Amino acid sequence: MESSKPKPGALLGSIDSPADLKKLKPEQLQDVCDELRQFIIDMVSVHGGHFGASLGVVELTTALHYVYDTPKDLLVWDVGHQAYGHKILTGRRGKFHTNRQYGGLSGFPKRSESEYDTFGVGHSSTSISAALGMAVARDLDKSDKKVVAVIGDGAMTAGLAFEAMNNAGAMNSDILVILNDNNMSIDPNVGALKEYLADITTSKTFNKMRDEMYDMLGHFKSAGEKMRKIASRLEKAMMAALTPGSLFRSLGFKYYGPTDGHDVDGLRRMLEDLKEVKGPKLLHIVTVKGKGFAPAEREQTKWHASSSPFDKITGKSLVEPKPAIPKPAPKYQDVFGEALVELAAKDENIVSMTPAMPSGSSLWPMMNTFPERSFDVGIAEQHAVTFAAGLASEGKKPFCAIYSSFLQRGYDQLVHDVAIQKLPVVFCIDRAGLVGADGPTHHGAYDTSYMRAVPNMVISSPLNEQDLRDMMFTASNFSEGAWAIRYPRGRATGMEIREEFHPIEIGKGIELRKGEDMAVLSFGPIGKYATEAAEILSDEGIEIGHFDMRFAKPLDTELIDEICLTYDHIITLEDGAKLGGFGSAVAEYIAEKSNRPTLKIMGIPDRIIEHGTQEELHEEIGIGVTGLIEMVKEKLNKKVGL
Amino acid sequence: MESSKPKPGALLGSIDSPADLKKLKPEQLQDVCDELRQFIIDMVSVHGGHFGASLGVVELTTALHYVYDTPKDLLVWDVGHQAYGHKILTGRRGKFHTNRQYGGLSGFPKRSESEYDTFGVGHSSTSISAALGMAVARDLDKSDKKVVAVIGDGAMTAGLAFEAMNNAGAMNSDILVILNDNNMSIDPNVGALKEYLADITTSKTFNKMRDEMYDMLGHFKSAGEKMRKIASRLEKAMMAALTPGSLFRSLGFKYYGPTDGHDVDGLRRMLEDLKEVKGPKLLHIVTVKGKGFAPAEREQTKWHASSSPFDKITGKSLVEPKPAIPKPAPKYQDVFGEALVELAAKDENIVSMTPAMPSGSSLWPMMNTFPERSFDVGIAEQHAVTFAAGLASEGKKPFCAIYSSFLQRGYDQLVHDVAIQKLPVVFCIDRAGLVGADGPTHHGAYDTSYMRAVPNMVISSPLNEQDLRDMMFTASNFSEGAWAIRYPRGRATGMEIREEFHPIEIGKGIELRKGEDMAVLSFGPIGKYATEAAEILSDEGIEIGHFDMRFAKPLDTELIDEICLTYDHIITLEDGAKLGGFGSAVAEYIAEKSNRPTLKIMGIPDRIIEHGTQEELHEEIGIGVTGLIEMVKEKLNKKVGL
Repeated sequence: MESSKPKPGALLGSIDSPADLKKLKPEQLQDVCDELRQFIIDMVSVHGGHFGASLGVVELTTALHYVYDTPKDLLVWDVGHQAYGHKILTGRRGKFHTNRQYGGLSGFPKRSESEYDTFGVGHSSTSISAALGMAVARDLDKSDKKVVAVIGDGAMTAGLAFEAMNNAGAMNSDILVILNDNNMSIDPNVGALKEYLADITTSKTFNKMRDEMYDMLGHFKSAGEKMRKIASRLEKAMMAALTPGSLFRSLGFKYYGPTDGHDVDGLRRMLEDLKEVKGPKLLHIVTVKGKGFAPAEREQTKWHASSSPFDKITGKSLVEPKPAIPKPAPKYQDVFGEALVELAAKDENIVSMTPAMPSGSSLWPMMNTFPERSFDVGIAEQHAVTFAAGLASEGKKPFCAIYSSFLQRGYDQLVHDVAIQKLPVVFCIDRAGLVGADGPTHHGAYDTSYMRAVPNMVISSPLNEQDLRDMMFTASNFSEGAWAIRYPRGRATGMEIREEFHPIEIGKGIELRKGEDMAVLSFGPIGKYATEAAEILSDEGIEIGHFDMRFAKPLDTELIDEICLTYDHIITLEDGAKLGGFGSAVAEYIAEKSNRPTLKIMGIPDRIIEHGTQEELHEEIGIGVTGLIEMVKEKLNKKVGL
Repeated sequence: MESSKPKPGALLGSIDSPADLKKLKPEQLQDVCDELRQFIIDMVSVHGGHFGASLGVVELTTALHYVYDTPKDLLVWDVGHQAYGHKILTGRRGKFHTNRQYGGLSGFPKRSESEYDTFGVGHSSTSISAALGMAVARDLDKSDKKVVAVIGDGAMTAGLAFEAMNNAGAMNSDILVILNDNNMSIDPNVGALKEYLADITTSKTFNKMRDEMYDMLGHFKSAGEKMRKIASRLEKAMMAALTPGSLFRSLGFKYYGPTDGHDVDGLRRMLEDLKEVKGPKLLHIVTVKGKGFAPAEREQTKWHASSSPFDKITGKSLVEPKPAIPKPAPKYQDVFGEALVELAAKDENIVSMTPAMPSGSSLWPMMNTFPERSFDVGIAEQHAVTFAAGLASEGKKPFCAIYSSFLQRGYDQLVHDVAIQKLPVVFCIDRAGLVGADGPTHHGAYDTSYMRAVPNMVISSPLNEQDLRDMMFTASNFSEGAWAIRYPRGRATGMEIREEFHPIEIGKGIELRKGEDMAVLSFGPIGKYATEAAEILSDEGIEIGHFDMRFAKPLDTELIDEICLTYDHIITLEDGAKLGGFGSAVAEYIAEKSNRPTLKIMGIPDRIIEHGTQEELHEEIGIGVTGLIEMVKEKLNKKVGL
């Protein structure tokens, strides 16, 4: 299909690797950039994808591959969806139409995909740490590779980036960090660092001070030799003090910039100069997200990514609007967003926070309606969780909206600051389960497992949008610890939703369908498959029972007991890791009940263990010698008693 | 026992709450401090405990409770082991001899212990996030509470602290952060921030520049009215530019200091002034860790904490040296530290890193022998893991030594940067299992569960020090992904260790003892209890089989199959959470094997799932409608076939 594989321009069409790019004259680079930009727009307008970030770094990408000797020199692209241009210039132009498609190219750099992809970068803010590791390996190997990390201003606010800067600055390793400042992450970013960068780039503070100083120094320079000398020394000190970038210099980096990130020749010359500068250095470039595609430049959040074809001039969607009836089911995200506003209207203690995902999580309704109770804390998952714990410690009811795979970054805070203290934080875990085109780094596979081990937590998942609303309502009245509600990316069922909220019983599942030999126990919206399968099987004369368990923790063991009496076979079904997840909870329970062989799991029980010597504690929880002997006797007696 | 409950001085003996402290005159505060310091030394010299940090903040603690209206005003003590003075002044003096004892006071602030303990603070760097949450709650409640976080310079290097500063600075919330700069965390701390702070406090750069400026301005001031005016404007601008703390000002904080943290009257006056300053502000105080106890001032790392009685003048241990034979068993930490050096001597690709715990983890032998291959990255667990991944991506073999409960903070990095990319990072997970006196925040309970869900990981635990060495050796030759070796705090068995390393078979357990009806499957050093119990039971005529399973992942399912054929009962034993842990792995396996009812766990399998639509992926891994129908038929056919 012609339209699905846009043709590159003549120059771009000749570039199958950076070696081809290097054959060009510097003055041809702007043309390469123009063709590259057009190719990305052509491609994404047909196939969808993140592209605002990639359009913003077309010139940088071209200059980097022109100046550096990739793949020997190592480029690390933070939050890799800025790397489309990089993929196209490094031999993947012909496959780029498969970007983010099943079986096709990954939307992020990926080590197994190309030797030019030095590091998998799906989550943000990893690039400086990874690059520092590479630089240290380079030094140990006495090689002369260059290592460059490209990181956005939004990603720079994450603690991981700061930890890496702090360490790199002290180690004095030869590394270049390029700060791509477009003043946006996905949503307009927040935090003091942003204001600091804006201060530099809009130059108000610095330039005004600098100008004033020059004025005054002028007076002295006309006042004789001695004054001129003093003025000259003063000027030097002044400039050192007033040059922007002191924050980065505080962390041990040489600072260069700010400079225009869309001037490919300027970038080329600057990168060539910087190759000669040793040690940790930061180049601050200013770019426009979506550069060259007018609709994306105007509305940067909306055009962060496109999942469907659009007109490449106007930006209008090319997807045929569906007939008005039936209207599409709402997204789980939107159901969450609206329910939160309704709950917050009734309960003024409800507050909410997101680590830089107000759009993705649909927190905008809450932020617009109750701005003083809604917090976008920037890309800072750790802080989001501990901040929520602080609010809860003073009587608030925080709804912390966070993607499953990003909550991995707030795991210690969930354990240490929330669960151990039994604080009532509601984790609204978005993107739980497989997420689709974003792939492995974004699949929300592990949350049930990593949370289930933690005491003082309720873990629930709704079968549908009605249950999501009712779970949120019930969680808002729960004060005994943390509550996680996990729901997937995408559309709910489209069912009729009742207006009022009903409480649901904590730790109780429900029987959706009676069956005979086989019971399916499902957890979450994936239960829809069981409903559908049960219908099909019924037509074939096979009747399965279906139970929507609703809770992975506490588990409805009474219901499971009943199920075990009625059914010979159980299948558990969840959109989450098998190991340690909901099914594992059922296995733990059933395995201990079964008889050939019986099983008893010993270990740290599901509660907080206070302090004491290890032996004291092992005895207390029954996993010391005494407890073990007792358990052996108990199990054998039980057998004897049968 | 007289010696176990030291008497407080006369002033301190009259203080049962901050209200009593407030009755004193300002000029009496130094005496209170002296008595408080002596009381802490008396107490810790008898009972042990962390005390270097608490001695360093005696004056600050006294001034804070004198100036602020606690518990209405909220104090948050980062890494709470600096809070001994706080506990003693807030009604817990009489119980303080039970500090860190089983059933006694917690070594950290704890919400359930006192209304003065606003937030549980065991892990570092949480205080600013928590305090910001409290400040926002205060603002929503229109209350006039003050909120103060006290954080050390080491804790300030963690990403969480930076995220919180960045957010607090932008929100302009009224909050005081006191930076307690003793230039030490547990081990001498590292990173650019440390050098930055040292620059301020040793005043070389700043004071020299300031002095030069004053000199020059002097010239102008004597040069007539117009010059004087210019010089005055210049001076103002100069001072703004050259006052220390620009890093913190970049983040939106007003900066005060540096000031002497042992001048209680100066602190009192400064805190009174700062109560009137609105918005986010940072007070930088300089203290000496272990202040007032000479041995601790000299050797700060050694005296970070004491676990046994010591002479309070000389610092010499009062524990009777044990007879030379039998010599005490080595600590697992030391076995690890020495084995690492031996392995690194044979394999120059081995590198190691620790997030600020070179002493606790016994990384010093490696750091001393191979300094260029050993990295203390500061309190920065996230960075430690991604930095290791970067090194591994360039062919190095990183041994990342990290405590179990601290690795919770590097969980996303373990998943996203290491496991998904199948990079061979060896996680040497120290303090796995219950840790003793540090209590709930430090127990290493969850690591097996949170790692087991993650693909591309081997999870092992040695029965003894010999196995630890052999596991490290085997892991150093493993290139198929991450490998975690978990071992507890404290002493190993004391067995004879052979010099050479032997490989162990991955995913294989061993039979330690044959038995009859009952098998105990143990994971890790806790297997010693099973060995002991088996002996005792044998004397009573009960023969249990004992299997050291060695691996929670991959699980030795062949061995379990054999065990199931031989034994009617199985007990699993581990020093880790029951939910999702090693026993859970056994349950998952056995539950799926058992027959009444059979169990099949469906979900995301234990491998990386690539990208695609959710439906495509669900079908691929067999948890869509088709897969479900097939599974039902397969299970029923199997039953029919029986």
